[in-house]
Amino acid sequence: MKRSERLVGMTHFFLENPKQLFSLPFFVEQYDAAKSSISEDMDIIDGMFKNIGIGELVTVAGAAGGVQYIPSLSKNQADHFMTDLIEHLEDPSRILPGGYVYMSDILGEPKYIREIGKIFASAFQSVNADYVVTVATKGIPLAYAVAQVLDIPVVIIRRDPKVTEGSTVSINYVSGSSRKIQTMVLAKRSIKEGSNVIIVDDFMKAGGTIHGMISLMHEFNANVQGIGVLAEAEDEEEDRKVEQYTSLLKFIEVNEDKHAIRVKRGNYF
Amino acid sequence: MKRSERLVGMTHFFLENPKQLFSLPFFVEQYDAAKSSISEDMDIIDGMFKNIGIGELVTVAGAAGGVQYIPSLSKNQADHFMTDLIEHLEDPSRILPGGYVYMSDILGEPKYIREIGKIFASAFQSVNADYVVTVATKGIPLAYAVAQVLDIPVVIIRRDPKVTEGSTVSINYVSGSSRKIQTMVLAKRSIKEGSNVIIVDDFMKAGGTIHGMISLMHEFNANVQGIGVLAEAEDEEEDRKVEQYTSLLKFIEVNEDKHAIRVKRGNYF
Repeated sequence: MKRSERLVGMTHFFLENPKQLFSLPFFVEQYDAAKSSISEDMDIIDGMFKNIGIGELVTVAGAAGGVQYIPSLSKNQADHFMTDLIEHLEDPSRILPGGYVYMSDILGEPKYIREIGKIFASAFQSVNADYVVTVATKGIPLAYAVAQVLDIPVVIIRRDPKVTEGSTVSINYVSGSSRKIQTMVLAKRSIKEGSNVIIVDDFMKAGGTIHGMISLMHEFNANVQGIGVLAEAEDEEEDRKVEQYTSLLKFIEVNEDKHAIRVKRGNYF
Repeated sequence: MKRSERLVGMTHFFLENPKQLFSLPFFVEQYDAAKSSISEDMDIIDGMFKNIGIGELVTVAGAAGGVQYIPSLSKNQADHFMTDLIEHLEDPSRILPGGYVYMSDILGEPKYIREIGKIFASAFQSVNADYVVTVATKGIPLAYAVAQVLDIPVVIIRRDPKVTEGSTVSINYVSGSSRKIQTMVLAKRSIKEGSNVIIVDDFMKAGGTIHGMISLMHEFNANVQGIGVLAEAEDEEEDRKVEQYTSLLKFIEVNEDKHAIRVKRGNYF
C-alpha cells in the first residue's frame, strides 16, 4: 500500500478511535509497512491535526506504549463556533411565555451537538472519568457527544423507574426554581462503586437538578469530577446550589415584553 | 502544502461533513493547490474509503456540482459488528423480572451506538429524509447517531409537555403491550409541514409506541419514509400494529426460568 492510501486509512482510524493506545507493530502489521514508514506517517498526521486544530497524536514510551489520538478543539475554533451559536440563540422568536428560551432545535442539530461535545471534552480532558452522567431528556445528546470524544460510556438518570432497568436507586430532590419535590432514578447496575464521573446537562437555573444528580452519585459512591452545563441562567448566583461548574453560555437578558434576548460566553471562556 | 498533509486534512474534512456537496474550487482555494492535484487526492481518498468499507466520494456534475462523501457501512462490516453485539446480548445476567432484557449499558456505549447509527443510515441512505424522529428516552442516542451520518436534525417526542418547548401538539395512544393509554407531545415548531421523516427507536414489542409516533407525524403532515428499531421482540407478528420496519436484532427466546436468552439478526439482514 502506498503512503498516500495509508495516510487516509490511518487518519480515519485515529479519528474513529480517540484516546485509545495502539502499538507501532499494530500498524506495521495492519498496513504491511516498515516501522520507519509508519513513524513518518504519524508525524505527518500529528502535524496536520495540530495545524487544523483538532488535537494531536501522543506517543507513550515503554513496553506497553504506543500512540494515541488526543482530540481537542483549539480555543480559537471553539471561539469561532461560540460566536455563531450565540448569534443563532439571540433570535427573539425563541422567547417563550414565562421568559423561557426555545433551544430544542439547536439541541437537535448533530453539527452543533458535536462541536459542543468537543469543547466539553477539551474542558474535561485532564479528568480521568469513567462515565458521563446526564438526566433525561435534553442533556442526553450532549452527554453522548462528550462521551464519544472521551471514549467512555454514558449513564442516563431517569425521572421515572422503568421495568427494563432492573433494580434501581432513587432519590427525591427539590427543584431549585419551581420548589417542587421531584424524583430521579438510576439502574443499580449502571455505575460501578467508586467510579469517577462527569455530569453534563443542557441548562442550569438554580442548580436543583444538578444538585440532585450529585446526591444520586453519592448513593453510588461515585466521585463527581466535573460538571458541564451548556447554558446557565442570568443572575442566579446567590441562590445557586452548585458552585463549581463549567458553562459555555450565559443568558444575560431574556425579556418577554421588550422581545429581547442577550447571551454571552459562559465561565469556560 | 504537501499532498501527504492535504490527504490528512481532506480525509478529516469529508468524514466531518458527510452528505454535503463541496465544489472543486473550494478545495483548490482551501489548500492552495492545482485542480488536477485535488482531483487526484479525491481519487486516492475515494479508493481508500471503498477499500476500508466506509463509503465513497461521489462526484456531481454541472455548475452546481461538486464532490460529497456518502458514508455507508459495508454489509461485511455490519455483519462482523452484529456477531459481536449478539454475543454481548446473549448474556443471561441481562434477563430482568418479567422477561425483559437489560440493554442500557449497550445503549450507553458510544462505540456501539455509532456503529448501529451507521447501519441504519446505510439502510435509509436512499430515503430523502428531513428529520430523524424518536421518542424519549432510550431511542435518543440511536437517533443522533443516524442523524449524524445523514446530516439532518433530530426531533425528540416527549411523554410530558415541558415549558421550554413552547406550544405543542399532543396525542393519546394505546401502548400495545400494557394496553394503557399514554401521551406523546411534540413542540409545534419542531417539524415543518410536509417534511419527510425517519422514525428510530430502541425496541419494538407490539408496536404501539411506533404506531403512536406515526399518528403524531400525521398531525404534522409529515411523511414517514422509514422506521428503524434496534431490536424487536419474539413472536409478536400477529398483533403487531406496524408492518413495514427495519430491525437489526430479534429476540427469539428470553426465558427467565431457564436463564436463557437467544438473539438473532433482524429483518435488515
